[in-house]
Amino acid sequence: MLICVGSIAFDTVETPEARAEEILGGSATYFGYAASLFGPVGLVGVVGEDFPDAHLAGFRSRGMDPAGVQRIAGRTFRWAGRYLDDMNVRETTHLELNVFGQFDPKLPPAYRDCGYCFLANGTPAIQHRVLDQLRKPKLVLADTMNHWIVNARDDVLSVLRRVDGVIINDEEAQMLSGRKNLVAAAKAVARLGPRIVIVKKGAHGSMLLVGSDLFLLPAFPVEEVHDPTGAGDCFAGAFMGHVARAGKTSLATLRRALLSGTLVASFDVEAFGVERLRDITLGAVEARARQFATMLRV
Amino acid sequence: MLICVGSIAFDTVETPEARAEEILGGSATYFGYAASLFGPVGLVGVVGEDFPDAHLAGFRSRGMDPAGVQRIAGRTFRWAGRYLDDMNVRETTHLELNVFGQFDPKLPPAYRDCGYCFLANGTPAIQHRVLDQLRKPKLVLADTMNHWIVNARDDVLSVLRRVDGVIINDEEAQMLSGRKNLVAAAKAVARLGPRIVIVKKGAHGSMLLVGSDLFLLPAFPVEEVHDPTGAGDCFAGAFMGHVARAGKTSLATLRRALLSGTLVASFDVEAFGVERLRDITLGAVEARARQFATMLRV
Repeated sequence: MLICVGSIAFDTVETPEARAEEILGGSATYFGYAASLFGPVGLVGVVGEDFPDAHLAGFRSRGMDPAGVQRIAGRTFRWAGRYLDDMNVRETTHLELNVFGQFDPKLPPAYRDCGYCFLANGTPAIQHRVLDQLRKPKLVLADTMNHWIVNARDDVLSVLRRVDGVIINDEEAQMLSGRKNLVAAAKAVARLGPRIVIVKKGAHGSMLLVGSDLFLLPAFPVEEVHDPTGAGDCFAGAFMGHVARAGKTSLATLRRALLSGTLVASFDVEAFGVERLRDITLGAVEARARQFATMLRV
Repeated sequence: MLICVGSIAFDTVETPEARAEEILGGSATYFGYAASLFGPVGLVGVVGEDFPDAHLAGFRSRGMDPAGVQRIAGRTFRWAGRYLDDMNVRETTHLELNVFGQFDPKLPPAYRDCGYCFLANGTPAIQHRVLDQLRKPKLVLADTMNHWIVNARDDVLSVLRRVDGVIINDEEAQMLSGRKNLVAAAKAVARLGPRIVIVKKGAHGSMLLVGSDLFLLPAFPVEEVHDPTGAGDCFAGAFMGHVARAGKTSLATLRRALLSGTLVASFDVEAFGVERLRDITLGAVEARARQFATMLRV
């Protein structure tokens, strides 16, 4: 089975055209909505007393199992951010860790045998605690962020030595490797440990490096981007969901999974929060895959 | 036949790692070296008394016909620029128009019947004068730049209404259209007149819009970029060279031409000036195409 360990949050998102207050967000949430298109997914996270049961019911109705979501005293994680004109740049305007600050991931017993696990962005210490609990993983991928790369570099590097792969963005790949050129950066990250390196470039697409095999994919072109929040976690969710569904990690599967990540992320940005993701089915993803194929044919 | 009207220059290029002084450059030069891989190309431009005959001989030996290159009193166009750390950003440190400031393009009689013509970046007035001289063009593409878009917008727009297509970079597409989103920008540029809109995104690849058909292509990944100068003109040269060689402008041909543009540009950036372009043959481009195909397969 597939599990994701990450944040569950209330996001306040401002774009040049609109604003949404305290909507459901967080890396595990976005990952879950994307991954559940492909099959069941277990979420591991923490919420506060203010988190509505309706959201947990929403998870369940989509095939997301919140058995690993602890509810503890206090308020749920809050994040607020603003997108600038070109929607590729955002600034965090407010951050309240709340209960996420005390997050101590405990995998339900059934999850300890899961084959597929995604460690969403969180402290390297949390990521290590999850890795300690996994008994027979087939594929573990991790995300990280600039904050940890700068402030806990050694811990990030020790996580990289324990996982099969990373899904990071271009800036993170550059910071981790000290290389500006993204191909060089991806190869340098692979030398730090992970066998699989996926670099997300937002509207510019993505890159998958597996050993010496490099794959490139543009982003699916979305003309009206309403809210890019969660696109990276959706990418990871659809990627991992695709792989877990296939039940194998062959090169061909990983390449197709990159396509699934690209397509599901393209739906995510079309509306605020998880709104668009709630709408879509695997059929919609497959229809967009056919549309995309005609754009990529050479 | 294929002709290109543009600049021939001496470039001084500085990168974080090296510097090259007064090397052969200019848009027509780069275009010519790329296009001549696919077949003969006529160059229309202007040089000063200081321009060595050896360079003209070099053009000829590569199948570039300099019959349209006028030599007039004065010094050849000079440009100097510096690339910043990530090689995607450059600043112009010195510009001397010299004889290019008096450039009045006169097509040799045989060129007036050419089917394929590229109007490299130059004043819209120069581009109009070339268009006035063409008797039966099949495909005319134009480039432009931020300077003309800002300072001679109406003239740029009147050129756009007379050409079949444009090959411009992301920033130019955004400035022309007032749209940040590149798909929206490309569609808006098409509404200004050109049937074919090609947007170059540097290391992030390119986009081809023909009517309602959109094609996407990543850049060929080059790990060691030594000098990006001329990559855009090589892209245009190989694109037009490919189309002229095919002798048709079907969608399939334009798509394959985009691939040729991408590949030849990737060679250009591997060395200073036209050095790498002098080395390569169509066979080398085809070998790289096969390598690229494995990276793009989904």
